[in-house]
Amino acid sequence: MDTATHTAAQSRVVDAALELFAVRGVNGTSLQMIADALGVTKAAVYHQFPSKEQIVVATAETELARLDAAVTAAEAEEDRSRALEVLLSQVVDLAVERRHVVSTLMHDPVVVRLLATHEPFPRLMARVSRVLLGAAPTAEARVRAAMTQIAIGGAVSHPLVADIDDDTLRSELLRMARRLFGLPVDR
Amino acid sequence: MDTATHTAAQSRVVDAALELFAVRGVNGTSLQMIADALGVTKAAVYHQFPSKEQIVVATAETELARLDAAVTAAEAEEDRSRALEVLLSQVVDLAVERRHVVSTLMHDPVVVRLLATHEPFPRLMARVSRVLLGAAPTAEARVRAAMTQIAIGGAVSHPLVADIDDDTLRSELLRMARRLFGLPVDR
Repeated sequence: MDTATHTAAQSRVVDAALELFAVRGVNGTSLQMIADALGVTKAAVYHQFPSKEQIVVATAETELARLDAAVTAAEAEEDRSRALEVLLSQVVDLAVERRHVVSTLMHDPVVVRLLATHEPFPRLMARVSRVLLGAAPTAEARVRAAMTQIAIGGAVSHPLVADIDDDTLRSELLRMARRLFGLPVDR
Repeated sequence: MDTATHTAAQSRVVDAALELFAVRGVNGTSLQMIADALGVTKAAVYHQFPSKEQIVVATAETELARLDAAVTAAEAEEDRSRALEVLLSQVVDLAVERRHVVSTLMHDPVVVRLLATHEPFPRLMARVSRVLLGAAPTAEARVRAAMTQIAIGGAVSHPLVADIDDDTLRSELLRMARRLFGLPVDR
């Protein structure tokens, strides 16, 4: 996923769109609203992206570029524990840093459908699963991978953690993720 | 939450509605579709529930009655580990048994809004959190409670576990939940 292909003008549209998506949902956000947020005309937004669908794709590409980098780093590790450490710590960092938009990426029906059907997203999700599953995709490994994928992203947008600062949230999430995988946990 | 207040005719509407909600979402389901699924007229459905909103409420009441029973049982335990065991095992049982509708209850925007705003649902959710948090709602306890609430319900509807049978899914989920709480795990 090469977000370098987005121009500066396109990136501004993507940033404004994502903030609106997080508040109003994708279906509740119009191109006019994105234009208004940027102080430009709707035609100017159209000039960057000919459809809202393409803005949603660009938004997901931008947000998932770092997930792609995290999986690539994990895949490069030969040791299973090391690969898990790399993936879990980078995914936790990413989820905490983007905590105000993670819920949109996980639950907005338009985004969910896109991530499930529009390459390269399903391929990226399969790579995440592969690292989490390891060489033996037993029932235990699959249940754990499913819980991990949901719990990290889901927890950062949960009301119970709303007033926990980023550093604390990061270290507690990583500790819980390590517990699930039986990795060493510092106390 | 007293589901005994639903008549047999109301329960049939609730069951049919929930199956449709799971496939089409609440907003994609009309009273006519519910009537068609039951082989009755729309007027007959109206006779049981004057609005779709009330069907959604009745559906949530029906599904959450057992969660209410589980929390009540956990609250009756004086010992913290025992209370957690009771809640986690009953919530896992419930999530696995209702795995085909859990995703609707967790993610359908209409249901999510209802559960957050319409008593007794927010009160029930607060009781679940209280048992999970224990006496000291530290950051660790809050992150773990958030992950647990999301991960159990979220995992049962995850594609990675789709072909795992109910018994295996139940025991693996419970094992992972125990790990998060540092409870003894049988192997």
